[in-house]
Amino acid sequence: MKDFRQHAHRIADWIADYLEGPERFPVLSRVQPGALRQALPANAPEHGEHFDAIFADFERLIVPALTHWNHPGFFAYFAITASAPGVLAEFLSAALNQQAMLWRTSPAATELEEVTLAWLRQLLGLPDGFEGVIYDTASISTLHALAAAREAAIPDVRAKGLTGRFEPAGVRVYCSEHAHSSVDKAVILLGLGHDAVVRIPADPDFRMRTDLLRSAIAADRAAGRLPLAVIATVGTTSSTSVDPVEAIAAICTAEKIWLHVDAAYAGVAAMVPGYEWILRGAEAADSLVVNPHKWLFTPFDLSVLYCRRMDVLRQAFSLTPEYLKTAEADAGVRNLMDTGIQLGRRFRALKLWMVLRHFGAEGLRGAIAEHIRLARLFAGWVDASDRFERAAPVPFSVVCFRLKNGSDDEHARLLDAVNASGEVFLSHTRLDGRYVFRLAIGNLATRESHVQRAWELLTSS
Amino acid sequence: MKDFRQHAHRIADWIADYLEGPERFPVLSRVQPGALRQALPANAPEHGEHFDAIFADFERLIVPALTHWNHPGFFAYFAITASAPGVLAEFLSAALNQQAMLWRTSPAATELEEVTLAWLRQLLGLPDGFEGVIYDTASISTLHALAAAREAAIPDVRAKGLTGRFEPAGVRVYCSEHAHSSVDKAVILLGLGHDAVVRIPADPDFRMRTDLLRSAIAADRAAGRLPLAVIATVGTTSSTSVDPVEAIAAICTAEKIWLHVDAAYAGVAAMVPGYEWILRGAEAADSLVVNPHKWLFTPFDLSVLYCRRMDVLRQAFSLTPEYLKTAEADAGVRNLMDTGIQLGRRFRALKLWMVLRHFGAEGLRGAIAEHIRLARLFAGWVDASDRFERAAPVPFSVVCFRLKNGSDDEHARLLDAVNASGEVFLSHTRLDGRYVFRLAIGNLATRESHVQRAWELLTSS
Repeated sequence: MKDFRQHAHRIADWIADYLEGPERFPVLSRVQPGALRQALPANAPEHGEHFDAIFADFERLIVPALTHWNHPGFFAYFAITASAPGVLAEFLSAALNQQAMLWRTSPAATELEEVTLAWLRQLLGLPDGFEGVIYDTASISTLHALAAAREAAIPDVRAKGLTGRFEPAGVRVYCSEHAHSSVDKAVILLGLGHDAVVRIPADPDFRMRTDLLRSAIAADRAAGRLPLAVIATVGTTSSTSVDPVEAIAAICTAEKIWLHVDAAYAGVAAMVPGYEWILRGAEAADSLVVNPHKWLFTPFDLSVLYCRRMDVLRQAFSLTPEYLKTAEADAGVRNLMDTGIQLGRRFRALKLWMVLRHFGAEGLRGAIAEHIRLARLFAGWVDASDRFERAAPVPFSVVCFRLKNGSDDEHARLLDAVNASGEVFLSHTRLDGRYVFRLAIGNLATRESHVQRAWELLTSS
Repeated sequence: MKDFRQHAHRIADWIADYLEGPERFPVLSRVQPGALRQALPANAPEHGEHFDAIFADFERLIVPALTHWNHPGFFAYFAITASAPGVLAEFLSAALNQQAMLWRTSPAATELEEVTLAWLRQLLGLPDGFEGVIYDTASISTLHALAAAREAAIPDVRAKGLTGRFEPAGVRVYCSEHAHSSVDKAVILLGLGHDAVVRIPADPDFRMRTDLLRSAIAADRAAGRLPLAVIATVGTTSSTSVDPVEAIAAICTAEKIWLHVDAAYAGVAAMVPGYEWILRGAEAADSLVVNPHKWLFTPFDLSVLYCRRMDVLRQAFSLTPEYLKTAEADAGVRNLMDTGIQLGRRFRALKLWMVLRHFGAEGLRGAIAEHIRLARLFAGWVDASDRFERAAPVPFSVVCFRLKNGSDDEHARLLDAVNASGEVFLSHTRLDGRYVFRLAIGNLATRESHVQRAWELLTSS
């Protein structure tokens, strides 16, 4: 442990230095595929090695193979932040090594999860009826939401499954054509079949068309198929468009269909004054996912599922073998293992708690609002440009744009050239069939100067 | 960042102090249900708070609500260790905030995962044909294994699902009566229905009876049901019994049924000379799960799925939306998002790499062998006792024992009394319908003196 102390201080300094200046590294790693693998031995060492040797290899081999998600010029996918309180909480969490399957195996993790998720729920303006649970990723949150929808809609599915039954003849899960691929993966996993996913076309602003949702449901009902769930997205992955949640919720209420709101990226913006509208209607949803690891400055991973019918989820999954029975459970404490397929849970609530306290509601609102301001600024430059044009509205912190004239290849070459600078990293998508650049702002270290530099590189390349 | 450095050093010292002496805390938290929740405010703070205030609350409110998995007297469930190199790696991993969905978003995480899993595979004596992938928990590993089994056995299940088909009329998944509840949860989630799980009775030493497995498969085939998979367990949760993998593998090969080996806890013991036999036959399995976070001194969470047919798993799940297309993927790099439902992945390989290098193969073998020695020592005391008797063989580091005469209530009272000491924490299970104490050794800080103290408390209470 003397060694631990010494090495921990060394790493504390290394991380402090690193977070002070990630700009000395290229954002996107320049390593060649296979280079790291080939640089390391084919077998584990027979004898233990000194920490100095391990850490030297970390610096020499691992660091060059990192893509720097902490770099203020990281504008790809959804940019994220491992904020200082979050990183320190993860350090503690690793050392405490809590495994929060049962209340008794970690009262702290169990109850702090309840407290922080109540705080976050209030910040988002969601009603008390939503109970929250922390998972690793939005993929797992959405999987559980759709599993609960299946449990609610198909009699006896837990025991009987879906094989060898005549009913339902077909099941349908509706989402916009811009919904996330996690919906597809969840539907496949649940045994509903990928064909069950109905992708509803979007309006010119990439929002689900509710008239087409309504007619799709009607057509499926007429054909004897069972509408199982609708996913409304608040902040789609390509363009961050916002589906009309209120109108979709009205349809789901009338049709008695499970509504899951995927607000993984943009949901947190609801705490910014003027943005409450993005979750309007979500109070009538059955479940909603929001990812503090995306735009709430919490180190990856921490996804939150809020559910108004957590009893259905528990009914779908809870199962207590003898070796996990405890007296407290009989007395009504919450055991986290009952709300999902994973038995074990890390102590993730600690980082969210430290982040919420460190920034306070005011600090979080301010940081999110600043990212939105920077995105709008950049969008203004695009709008004023002769060479580029905007490809989508900018409701949040992502700007989609393209060359006014340019083939896919020209777009791809320009993107590669800009990313090769090492100063910024942007990604792309496709909207209305056309190649589109995406500039996503989400890192706390990103300043106006970094956004400006991205624009200079784009316009000069 | 000046603040970060200062606070990181403070936490480094706190953790070093903590890991030096977790014995100053009671193992099992003494907090009352609801106490932590009630001690914290109902709302997030409006204004950001100083780290000192947050950390003071951590020490005052969170720490008393911890059950100390690091305590050398933690003998419940499966005891685990957050070893120093693992904790330091997690600190780095949190700060680097890698999201390894694509090779390009973290070449380091992608390739270090390949390297460390090849190292571990060699240590376990598994053949090269097994490709590995890191997930969070064994529940998720087993879920993916059974999803692949479903994909391999049921034509077109990815697209068509299981609803509204006449075939298969019924599906069966076989495991021993002592298999883990994660099998049940996976089967439920996959839409196969809990009734699909056939629990094969065990022999007097709690190992699956292969004669009964064979006849169950024959009966199901005769009834027109589809045998989908068999799960053989190496180290069952209650008694750590080892199913006869070689005989089960022979049946699965002959019957063309997917064999998944659940070696989550005990698999790592295969690296200890004299214990190679526990994975004999596993080379013919289709998949195998082993959890470095259980008995390989790696902080929670890190589970490894090895699969000989990873192409089937990819076929079941891979799905690349436009915004995740990269040039390297066309050139054949591995994108971790293709091997599972979770799109995002933490940089978990770093901790396994640091643990393997810090201890070396020799160090790991020695530590595991010492835990086995301590368990056998304790078992000897039980065997020599007038008051207690052993309830199962001790192949690894868990001892199952009970009062020679004693009702369930007497057992439960004794366990509560011993755990109330704060010096040790044991859990229980039920074998052959009878209440059984479990003493599980798995923490690197556990010495013979701690095991002795557990025995003193048991015999004097």
